[in-house]
Amino acid sequence: MTINLKSGLTAGLMLLFMSFSLHAEWVEKRSFTTQDFELFNGQTLAEVKVGWQAYGELNEARDNVILITHFFSGNSHVAGQYEADGAIGYWDAIVGPGKAIDTDRFYVISVDTLVNQEPHNPKVITTGPATINPETNAPYGLDFPVVTIRDFVNVQKALLDELGIENLHAVIGASMGSLQAIDWAAAYPEKVERMVSVIGMAQADPWTVLNLQQWAEPILADPNWNKGDYYDAETPLNGLQQALMQISLQAMHPDIINATFPDHETLAEGPLHNIQSYHSEVNWLRERAAERALYADANHVLYLVRANQLFIAGMQEDLRSGLEPIQARSLFMPATNDLLLRPAMARKAHELLQELGKESQYLEIEGSWGHLDGIMSIESRAQELKEFLQ
Amino acid sequence: MTINLKSGLTAGLMLLFMSFSLHAEWVEKRSFTTQDFELFNGQTLAEVKVGWQAYGELNEARDNVILITHFFSGNSHVAGQYEADGAIGYWDAIVGPGKAIDTDRFYVISVDTLVNQEPHNPKVITTGPATINPETNAPYGLDFPVVTIRDFVNVQKALLDELGIENLHAVIGASMGSLQAIDWAAAYPEKVERMVSVIGMAQADPWTVLNLQQWAEPILADPNWNKGDYYDAETPLNGLQQALMQISLQAMHPDIINATFPDHETLAEGPLHNIQSYHSEVNWLRERAAERALYADANHVLYLVRANQLFIAGMQEDLRSGLEPIQARSLFMPATNDLLLRPAMARKAHELLQELGKESQYLEIEGSWGHLDGIMSIESRAQELKEFLQ
Repeated sequence: MTINLKSGLTAGLMLLFMSFSLHAEWVEKRSFTTQDFELFNGQTLAEVKVGWQAYGELNEARDNVILITHFFSGNSHVAGQYEADGAIGYWDAIVGPGKAIDTDRFYVISVDTLVNQEPHNPKVITTGPATINPETNAPYGLDFPVVTIRDFVNVQKALLDELGIENLHAVIGASMGSLQAIDWAAAYPEKVERMVSVIGMAQADPWTVLNLQQWAEPILADPNWNKGDYYDAETPLNGLQQALMQISLQAMHPDIINATFPDHETLAEGPLHNIQSYHSEVNWLRERAAERALYADANHVLYLVRANQLFIAGMQEDLRSGLEPIQARSLFMPATNDLLLRPAMARKAHELLQELGKESQYLEIEGSWGHLDGIMSIESRAQELKEFLQ
Repeated sequence: MTINLKSGLTAGLMLLFMSFSLHAEWVEKRSFTTQDFELFNGQTLAEVKVGWQAYGELNEARDNVILITHFFSGNSHVAGQYEADGAIGYWDAIVGPGKAIDTDRFYVISVDTLVNQEPHNPKVITTGPATINPETNAPYGLDFPVVTIRDFVNVQKALLDELGIENLHAVIGASMGSLQAIDWAAAYPEKVERMVSVIGMAQADPWTVLNLQQWAEPILADPNWNKGDYYDAETPLNGLQQALMQISLQAMHPDIINATFPDHETLAEGPLHNIQSYHSEVNWLRERAAERALYADANHVLYLVRANQLFIAGMQEDLRSGLEPIQARSLFMPATNDLLLRPAMARKAHELLQELGKESQYLEIEGSWGHLDGIMSIESRAQELKEFLQ
């Protein structure tokens, strides 16, 4: 466990590229562009360009489509393997031929979101503050409009429209992906047959708004942030790294952190004698955050934080009104030990749907990872997921 | 609840001065000074000066003493009322004539710790990086040595020695106070008859080390911090405020935060249209942190973080060896919903003491405040506490 966790975290901490299989299917990144994209808040983007990936074959009736929406630090690489570097998708354990999300049967699509955390990752295609603003020929910075989870959904819908896909057999997402999944079911009820929310929520409550803000504050405080205008100067790397330290730490339950460091030395000589020397775990977390920061962009993190803070499924004033139109059968799978999007949040959405007479199931994922059980322990619920998708 | 919480938080967020009674006993701050104070890490402080308060009367045998040790953001004002401003101590609900910690019977003492969070609070007397270094006639800054919970204990012991007090009927503390309490029992087993750990732990585990570090990072990143040398310049106020935002948020369970904002507007117009506009809760937390920062000192927060990171009861290499000498009867009272010092941490210490053949009890405090239930809901365990002290 110790070795697996540490090497997995070294490879990216959200375990995007952690390998569970050496024989995943090859997959390629594709690109989708659309013009004059209208945003939920009324503003318009002249051009939106995002990456996407697909698995399996679209059938003639075009009714075998499953959309998988990604989490905060993730991207469209949900499964399969890139030929160039061998990187394997985060849910390869459940997406593939004969797996829970069976690509022998379903055409599985996943799309990079707007304002993706890693615009500087060569394997991510996204549009956000780091994108060149066609009006100025310089990066948007804070001129980029505020975007919402609904806008992520509508970019995906534009892609599906172009592909001639009218209905989704299912939409499935973990964490921030679950926000997109439930909003899909609320926004386009007649198009969504099944909705799976993994480690998810239906509304950002005040605590979540405040907790997300803790990820933004170090960026806002970094003098190099310069109100978002840093693309031709020193970047706010320190603030970004602090944000990523917090994100990394909060995604994991204390038990898994503690199990990772069985040889923890409380009274370590360095920290005991020098206020500027740190416990080895602190240095480890800083190094992992520094690695994660390589491809990330500080403004993109701010915009992602905001999209999550503004989330309420259905984008109505109250959640009940937002969920009312849903026609999909729903399945909520929170992680028992999740301290970030706690099971109570998924249960609330599940119970509200039941009150509204909708079909909804609730099933927890057990594990010691906390929030990350939505990735690390998803295979333990493969059978139930497979049955739900029949 | 909403009104009480908000006004309570406005008055200081750790509820130090929140009033439960309009008829508390008057109490005064006193001062204690000692020279050539040897620290656990081998360094020496030429002079240590701290504040303290006392309640009740020391009996002739000097054997009716209860020491109360304070939490991270607290000070010696545990109960009673200051005549100057009417401020009431944080545990006034359980400390006073006829109360659980009965000052008609016990002589209760509480002492400001070294490196107290609020050296600029006129009601706090402490020695730390903001103190004038007699060798240079300037504030110590980072020349101040790293101090540990054991050093807090030894300052208290020096005061008791001066008062001619050889034994403690009990030592009781909440949160960081619980660290001092259990270390007292381990360091001076023959002097401590009873030990009460409220919302406490016996050892900082790796998760706690990393979580505490999140409070330090924004200070370290603030350019005004200047490696701790800011006493004749702009102070690292922004970093300090960020630290205090995190401390405030983590001390409270999501449920109490959410209950505080029943009118939360997820799709608030400001944040939806302007990336530099924030939800009202964010502004509220920032304002509270700004108020808390008035008396606080950034370096002191760093040194407090370190003292907690270095904590292992008994200050041995392993916890079992550290707890082995304890003779006190112990009582652990974690808060059921505490996400900061989780009940599992107190339970671990309790079970280890039982394994070692010591007398130990375990009793959770119920409530919706989370960590702060150790203050806000302590009265619900007044009877059990009173009986334990018989």
